[in-house]
Amino acid sequence: MDFFFYPSSVAVFGSFKKGAIAYEILRNIVEGGFEGKIIPVNPKGGTVEVAGRTFEIRGGLEEPVDTAIIAIPAKFVPGLIDDIGPLIKGAVVISAGFSEVGNADLERELVEKARKHSVRIIGPNCAGIFGVHGKFFGSFEVRVRLGGLTLISQSGAFGGAALAMGNDEGIGFSAFVSYGNASDLNESDFLKYFADDENTKAIALYIEGVKDGRRFLKALRYATKRKPVIILKAGKSAGGARAAASHTGSLAGSYEIYRAAFKQAGAIEVEEMEELFDAAKAFEMYSKAGKRVVVITNSGGPGVLATDKLERLGLEMARLSDETVNELRSFLPPQCSVKNPIDLIADADYERYRKTIEVVCRDGNVDSLLVICVPPIFLPSEEIARAVIEADCDKPVIVNFMAGELVRDGVQLLEGHGVKNFPTPERAAKALAWLARC
Amino acid sequence: MDFFFYPSSVAVFGSFKKGAIAYEILRNIVEGGFEGKIIPVNPKGGTVEVAGRTFEIRGGLEEPVDTAIIAIPAKFVPGLIDDIGPLIKGAVVISAGFSEVGNADLERELVEKARKHSVRIIGPNCAGIFGVHGKFFGSFEVRVRLGGLTLISQSGAFGGAALAMGNDEGIGFSAFVSYGNASDLNESDFLKYFADDENTKAIALYIEGVKDGRRFLKALRYATKRKPVIILKAGKSAGGARAAASHTGSLAGSYEIYRAAFKQAGAIEVEEMEELFDAAKAFEMYSKAGKRVVVITNSGGPGVLATDKLERLGLEMARLSDETVNELRSFLPPQCSVKNPIDLIADADYERYRKTIEVVCRDGNVDSLLVICVPPIFLPSEEIARAVIEADCDKPVIVNFMAGELVRDGVQLLEGHGVKNFPTPERAAKALAWLARC
Repeated sequence: MDFFFYPSSVAVFGSFKKGAIAYEILRNIVEGGFEGKIIPVNPKGGTVEVAGRTFEIRGGLEEPVDTAIIAIPAKFVPGLIDDIGPLIKGAVVISAGFSEVGNADLERELVEKARKHSVRIIGPNCAGIFGVHGKFFGSFEVRVRLGGLTLISQSGAFGGAALAMGNDEGIGFSAFVSYGNASDLNESDFLKYFADDENTKAIALYIEGVKDGRRFLKALRYATKRKPVIILKAGKSAGGARAAASHTGSLAGSYEIYRAAFKQAGAIEVEEMEELFDAAKAFEMYSKAGKRVVVITNSGGPGVLATDKLERLGLEMARLSDETVNELRSFLPPQCSVKNPIDLIADADYERYRKTIEVVCRDGNVDSLLVICVPPIFLPSEEIARAVIEADCDKPVIVNFMAGELVRDGVQLLEGHGVKNFPTPERAAKALAWLARC
Repeated sequence: MDFFFYPSSVAVFGSFKKGAIAYEILRNIVEGGFEGKIIPVNPKGGTVEVAGRTFEIRGGLEEPVDTAIIAIPAKFVPGLIDDIGPLIKGAVVISAGFSEVGNADLERELVEKARKHSVRIIGPNCAGIFGVHGKFFGSFEVRVRLGGLTLISQSGAFGGAALAMGNDEGIGFSAFVSYGNASDLNESDFLKYFADDENTKAIALYIEGVKDGRRFLKALRYATKRKPVIILKAGKSAGGARAAASHTGSLAGSYEIYRAAFKQAGAIEVEEMEELFDAAKAFEMYSKAGKRVVVITNSGGPGVLATDKLERLGLEMARLSDETVNELRSFLPPQCSVKNPIDLIADADYERYRKTIEVVCRDGNVDSLLVICVPPIFLPSEEIARAVIEADCDKPVIVNFMAGELVRDGVQLLEGHGVKNFPTPERAAKALAWLARC
């Protein structure tokens, strides 16, 4: 499937009027910096201007390309595939109006034409794809930052919203697939492909239902052996399952069966959309962590909240060795608490944070660190951010800087160094629980 | 306690060097627009400039003021209270160094001096107070928007972080109290006071432990009869309780007892910091709602996620009346789903949203509405925001606009009209569950 996610040439079919789907996709491809050949196609011809470049709109496709992105009326799609089949390897069919509105015959025809020419299909009725490391933004959805997460979404709107929210959350993406009706390629194919994609560190999957449970489970096992797979399953409740049936036609099936299957296959199931982001952030940084956590904080309350959540999730508050405690006492002011949570108190500065992180990190009883900072007014949050970044520690460090505008600069500095911030103590604790597979 | 939260005059004691605590508090009071008399006091005298105004620093307090804010070294505080006691009604003691570090005698002396002059004390070892409707920002914490939430926090740092994050979340505040060691006034006093404060619509409480359980329960019952009280209890787990003991000296006690007491008293207990914000947002808008919810969405996936969460939390998907279904069918395109969740599909515009909200709102089977919008590229989110704002509906409407930058303008418009946005379908569902007391 490299021709989809690392294409060297692409043709876009549809209307190139401003605001039209094909125009928006073309714009995304061009503005995203795609370095391969880009061919807009529409029988009416003409030209289209995008990002200061003028493209001639071809009346038809006359040369081979890796991938076609198709946003023309549904009824013309099978004919187009038959027509350009010999010239393309894959087609992303954005167009809606197939099985999701009862036109199963049209969808079958589309697949038959594709098979005839050995063309693989993503969609129809989908939002498109991103291959971020190939600078290929083949979707009308908002472009994202380069990173390690591949998002595979059965729902286009969910996917689009998640990409935009991922930008806000500091997530970096390697790829995105909205696979819509899954007429040809489906979640199982993508799981297997991205399991072996070297730019993908973690896979996040939104599904309402799967068509072939056995195949899915096999693909899921294949993927989880290679990298973390995070799953958000929608259609869990009775009403949710009915809604899913009406939305993607999925037989959501018994949630208990899915749940057991995810667990058995070693996937990380999350309960909410927000958790999908948080787990993704954790796994973009680390693939796993042990259960024994130390909490380092400069304010008591948030330290207590973190402790509550960690223990509730089945993690353990690490018991620091006597050596660590003595070393901490040797440089920390007497008001600091050297129990776990370690309270560095409000005036903790760069040195206090950095040294504490380093000392604790060397303790054999500690698997991972949760570092909390509520910056006092007299200390810029960047100073503590630098301490986290510069501390010499080879164990997972999960960070919770909080206080809105007061930590904006610190969080930005952290993110610039690949350290993602979790906005509350509890969300940071959950990140550690996923890493520890609790 | 009006002299604390609606003072007509205030004296600030401490150092007025830039960056010093007293200076920062003075700056907050002045920049916050306090219209009463402001007197900085320091034996060294001199002047201090704040926000373009020059204040003479008095050597001592010589005229009566409602409230003194004190940020001088702990050991001098009892003497100062004895000295100025005849001139003040209340004192907010920011200074640390009392019982929290073992100086219980000094704290007892402070309280004795205050009692002698019938002066009430908030603190010591606290972050100060805000009376937002009195434009009185008597704390060094970040200033907040005017609104209906009073935040009472045992932890100063938690309180400060929550205020700053509340600004990001679109929360409006009526008041804030960080009460530190609670040497005199404590959570029970504040609960009772704000229960009767007409500007407070809801009270949020962060506690690690309470000193007098019986009195607290009585105050809590008093408050919940008058307005929603949201509680975040820290120190729930064994490790959390130990951490709380070391932080605020609270005997966190058995969490099960607290939990039962909260429930019995009719308070809304939340599990996480983020939920405190979400519940606060819901209760700033509405005091309650029924259990039968209708979900209106323009994208299937998020509608399924909302349904899952609503049912999981014990809410019901409202069964629309035949009349409602027929009326919806009369104007909605045939591809829309008129079951609950109602899917208005991606091209839903102002009219479609507004009319649907109004028709559904009239249905006697519907208690509340959850309106989801993932704006498609061709539609500005403000258009849907306007539909929500202008729809004629007298039932609770909880809104989930999502897609990061794509909904920024829409969310801003909503907030400008007092409609708070919940960033995921699940968080919106939880808001409805709190309103329904599920």
